[in-house]
Amino acid sequence: MRKVFQEELAHVGEDLIEISKLVSEAIGKATTSFESADVDLAQDVIAADARIDFLQNSLDERAIDILALQGPVASDLRMIVGSLRMSASLERMGDLARHIAQLARLRFPSTVIPEALTGTFKSFAEQDIEIANKLTQLLETRDLEVARDILKANSTVNDLHLSVFKAIARPDWQESPATTVDVALASRYFERFADHGVSVAQKVTYLVTGAWHPNSIEHG
Amino acid sequence: MRKVFQEELAHVGEDLIEISKLVSEAIGKATTSFESADVDLAQDVIAADARIDFLQNSLDERAIDILALQGPVASDLRMIVGSLRMSASLERMGDLARHIAQLARLRFPSTVIPEALTGTFKSFAEQDIEIANKLTQLLETRDLEVARDILKANSTVNDLHLSVFKAIARPDWQESPATTVDVALASRYFERFADHGVSVAQKVTYLVTGAWHPNSIEHG
Repeated sequence: MRKVFQEELAHVGEDLIEISKLVSEAIGKATTSFESADVDLAQDVIAADARIDFLQNSLDERAIDILALQGPVASDLRMIVGSLRMSASLERMGDLARHIAQLARLRFPSTVIPEALTGTFKSFAEQDIEIANKLTQLLETRDLEVARDILKANSTVNDLHLSVFKAIARPDWQESPATTVDVALASRYFERFADHGVSVAQKVTYLVTGAWHPNSIEHG
Repeated sequence: MRKVFQEELAHVGEDLIEISKLVSEAIGKATTSFESADVDLAQDVIAADARIDFLQNSLDERAIDILALQGPVASDLRMIVGSLRMSASLERMGDLARHIAQLARLRFPSTVIPEALTGTFKSFAEQDIEIANKLTQLLETRDLEVARDILKANSTVNDLHLSVFKAIARPDWQESPATTVDVALASRYFERFADHGVSVAQKVTYLVTGAWHPNSIEHG
């Protein structure tokens, strides 16, 4: 029984890593489609999001079965409850990658972002991809140094997000209202993606160290 | 032991209702501050959000203790896992009410929304308040008729959200870029608030009927 239980727990961990890899792939493709107005690639991301949702549901089912059948306690219980929360954050990251791809599709054959901000959004993309890749690495290794890299990337993302809103508020901003809204929403999607990445990183940190600062992200 | 267990379960249910009432109060005050540029009221909402976060954390701690100490199965287990998810959605609704109040504070002494859209945002406020109030009622009574009212209000909110983006895209839209962004973000906050309300309503429906359509909101 004990061996089955450990296998089941390991399986949940592997599911999380698999979802995290799909999220990495989604944000990579979404940002490319977004930067280059590649509508086929955008379509791929939108279609692939269903797979992330499916995997989240099967992970959650598996976690609930473990709760029901094995009655885990202490660190095993924390790991299961933590997995339910991490899967919800990863699923939401997949949604946000899909939202970015949907913006690319909506504005095709134009690009979403005006010339003057392409550098900013290229940096957004790099940081969000970094966060997604590091998240997989963190789930695989539980190396807390990696969690710190994620926090650092998130801080860069917050700066970028602020700079976008400052650019929009400047007197020389000349873009159409529709473009203005696209830029603001895209900026928020990139920023929320990073927030959820930090949220997962904090949960892994909690599972490793037992130290927990609940909700410290959502209220930043 | 069994009696203690049932009391603990009931306590989780009461915590959910209490959080839901605070969310109702938050969205009511937030929308008033937003409509009337009442910065003191906005400040109240922002400060009161910490209480919602605190209650969510204590509910979650309680739920995890029940999982650890009582090893619930079947419908009790579903109720506990469902409560963890509902508390996360309610906490997020509190955040969104706070975001609306923060917009009001940011633009004080002006109002956030231009004249032409005050009617639309008044309707947004009414629907979100309706959803929050009905959510408390649903958690108290588990009357699925109330869940249907929430779905209906959400559908109105989605229509309002679309109408805002159409208004911004019209050639006669004359507002500043900063106002345009405020309007778009505020519209998204109202819409996400309603989404999370539906998400809670669906979880209650699942707990009552056992029929579950996972994630049907997030991907609409």
